[in-house]
Amino acid sequence: MKRVGIAILGLGVVGGGSYRILTDNRDFYRRTQDVDLCVESVLECDRERALALGVPEDCIASNIFEIVSDPDVSIVVECIGGIGAAREFALAALHAGKTVVTSNKELFCKFSHELEKEARRNNAGLYFEASCVGGVPIIRTLLDGVQSNRISAMMGIINGTTNYILTKMTQDGASYEDALREAQELGYAECDPSADVEGFDAAYKLSILSSLAFHTKVPFSKVFREGITGVSKEDIADGEALGYRLKLLAIGKQTPSGIEVRVHPTFVRKEHPLAAVNDSFNAVYLTGDSVGDVMLYGRGAGALPTGSAIVSDIIYAATHSEHKYSTFRNTANAEKDVKFVSDFLSAYYLRLTVQDKTGVLAKLSSVFGKCNVSIVEMIQKSAVGGKSTIVLITHETHELAVRSAVAKLESSEIAKVESVLRVAL
Amino acid sequence: MKRVGIAILGLGVVGGGSYRILTDNRDFYRRTQDVDLCVESVLECDRERALALGVPEDCIASNIFEIVSDPDVSIVVECIGGIGAAREFALAALHAGKTVVTSNKELFCKFSHELEKEARRNNAGLYFEASCVGGVPIIRTLLDGVQSNRISAMMGIINGTTNYILTKMTQDGASYEDALREAQELGYAECDPSADVEGFDAAYKLSILSSLAFHTKVPFSKVFREGITGVSKEDIADGEALGYRLKLLAIGKQTPSGIEVRVHPTFVRKEHPLAAVNDSFNAVYLTGDSVGDVMLYGRGAGALPTGSAIVSDIIYAATHSEHKYSTFRNTANAEKDVKFVSDFLSAYYLRLTVQDKTGVLAKLSSVFGKCNVSIVEMIQKSAVGGKSTIVLITHETHELAVRSAVAKLESSEIAKVESVLRVAL
Repeated sequence: MKRVGIAILGLGVVGGGSYRILTDNRDFYRRTQDVDLCVESVLECDRERALALGVPEDCIASNIFEIVSDPDVSIVVECIGGIGAAREFALAALHAGKTVVTSNKELFCKFSHELEKEARRNNAGLYFEASCVGGVPIIRTLLDGVQSNRISAMMGIINGTTNYILTKMTQDGASYEDALREAQELGYAECDPSADVEGFDAAYKLSILSSLAFHTKVPFSKVFREGITGVSKEDIADGEALGYRLKLLAIGKQTPSGIEVRVHPTFVRKEHPLAAVNDSFNAVYLTGDSVGDVMLYGRGAGALPTGSAIVSDIIYAATHSEHKYSTFRNTANAEKDVKFVSDFLSAYYLRLTVQDKTGVLAKLSSVFGKCNVSIVEMIQKSAVGGKSTIVLITHETHELAVRSAVAKLESSEIAKVESVLRVAL
Repeated sequence: MKRVGIAILGLGVVGGGSYRILTDNRDFYRRTQDVDLCVESVLECDRERALALGVPEDCIASNIFEIVSDPDVSIVVECIGGIGAAREFALAALHAGKTVVTSNKELFCKFSHELEKEARRNNAGLYFEASCVGGVPIIRTLLDGVQSNRISAMMGIINGTTNYILTKMTQDGASYEDALREAQELGYAECDPSADVEGFDAAYKLSILSSLAFHTKVPFSKVFREGITGVSKEDIADGEALGYRLKLLAIGKQTPSGIEVRVHPTFVRKEHPLAAVNDSFNAVYLTGDSVGDVMLYGRGAGALPTGSAIVSDIIYAATHSEHKYSTFRNTANAEKDVKFVSDFLSAYYLRLTVQDKTGVLAKLSSVFGKCNVSIVEMIQKSAVGGKSTIVLITHETHELAVRSAVAKLESSEIAKVESVLRVAL
């Protein structure tokens, strides 16, 4: 039986989970995968943490050089995070001809071109299933499951923290602040939650997934990004009344005008399969020209789900004798002839406060009409203190048309625009 | 660029769909997969059908020998169906060292051991993604996406015809007969619908999927099978009132007592992700020890979705230089030391008709108590013509205990048992 030596860099949540899976299941993999996966060494500055996990003392490496020069190690798992040491160590491992498996979305999003170049040069593998949507095999699916399709659209709930917060706001009527605090207490959100709540995490993943789906480099810089910090429980309740659920969606589309990539809070119809994806669960909904609609659903984070993706990649690498790389030009920036759409089409939800007097609706309609924004449905709530709330959903409209209508409403003092959210019809 | 010659056996729905995808996308695959997939020949007795699809006259083979002896053909796609010619031709192709891609669940379920033996002997590939759940990459996921997991349970809606019928019965209150007729008119059900409605199709697929999930041969003969022909709209409405949806589920479990494989109509809670899988859509819900719960959702049948799976397998085979086979002993029957559970545990739904007189509930309770069946909830409907309907849900109970309680109720004339359905809690 083939024996494959593994080194794990960083024994935090994901590295520790991967270590546990590998050691608990060694016999199971010998039996079911016909391969002997052996953790030869780990790199972890917190020695106590490594020992607590059960790592034998002589398996704790002192530095990266010990690992990259170890002929018994053929796969290096990068679970350090960030783009400092992680990048340097991953490149060193590839340079030494070792296959790299990583869960690092920021690293892969920003430096996949550099990593892949080094991997090709040294005939090493580069695997990154764990970088996107935890244990859900979305990357394997894009590469080897629906690769016969032209993917026209992808809509994903690919950040568990924000989905947990939005679910709490929806189900319990919690405020953003309270829901965030609860998520932090449960360990679903970091002390500084900005990477999640501002949509950076989802945007890294969307850049990776849409590059694969659309067969061209989709850099992070092209992703339109809006987080959930401005979402109010009023918006969620109003959307609910109209038949919509609010989700932080990562949307990628291949349109005749170009590629569209965006992360923002989005209302989806309650009947849509994504509307039922709650708590910290994730899902990606793909549309391909042959397969039609496909959805993958599961846990997007956590030691064991992400470890599952890491170890599945390890098994794949250990049981295939050749490595595959991107068939598109994996560059730092987008290719020159690829167009990106910034003035995208979407339906919109708007919540406005207006003076409760005659003629207001006519003025509103006139502004929307001039900006080519047409309305599907509208609810006017009973007035309080001389002011009314109006909630409306538009037809599909260009983003810039809506922005221009909003600016006109504000500057002419016809209405105060409390919220503008996008709607996936 | 590598050029790979393909032959398609049978240009029915799936073969025709695969032909269209391959020819429409040839340039797309050259660009995105770095491979030139060329349909060299087809075998189709209806010459007009082949010509109508645009197959050049000189690509229509006269017999299988032309194809298996053609050095330009390296992948043979079997879309004939059944286990006569399909088996013979697939074996002939493998014997000639050609890789076989098939959508034939009955063939693969019953003869995978024979096909795999021939494939190994000739170093040929054997791919069967299209045999289960159409375009949904469930086999790729089991093999290469969650293979790091011990799968403990699998619950699938893996037959589109029956899901369409049950959805119509649920949403429109249609009778089984009317819903079946509608499915037949739309082409979702065959004139003789028994393969679908009696659960054979789902059982073939469950045998294939659970063999992969549990790493041992799970033969068709071990699958407990009950179809949907006995389902009434009253059951569906009563289940709905209790918070459940009825689905034809294929269930595979790895339990301490052995492997459990069964196909039967099953109530699932409305909140379960499978409850929202409607119409002809399919889904498989997996539970793994690391990944937790994962669900794959999509179209389980149709020319293009199943063609998507066929062509994805072709690309996989054409771009990997080695083939992988089962790591378990792929035999005709189950291995001797593997246990299967027939007296499985489940919750149950029962609908009873009783005489509307005092003492009946006490007698019912006594029978259930003696058989170790305990009740979670019960609804007694108002009496009509001296008879009442009682609907109840039990706790998890052994199948045989419920059967024994039902027999006792019937023989003692305490109640007429109108329906017994299983419930997934």
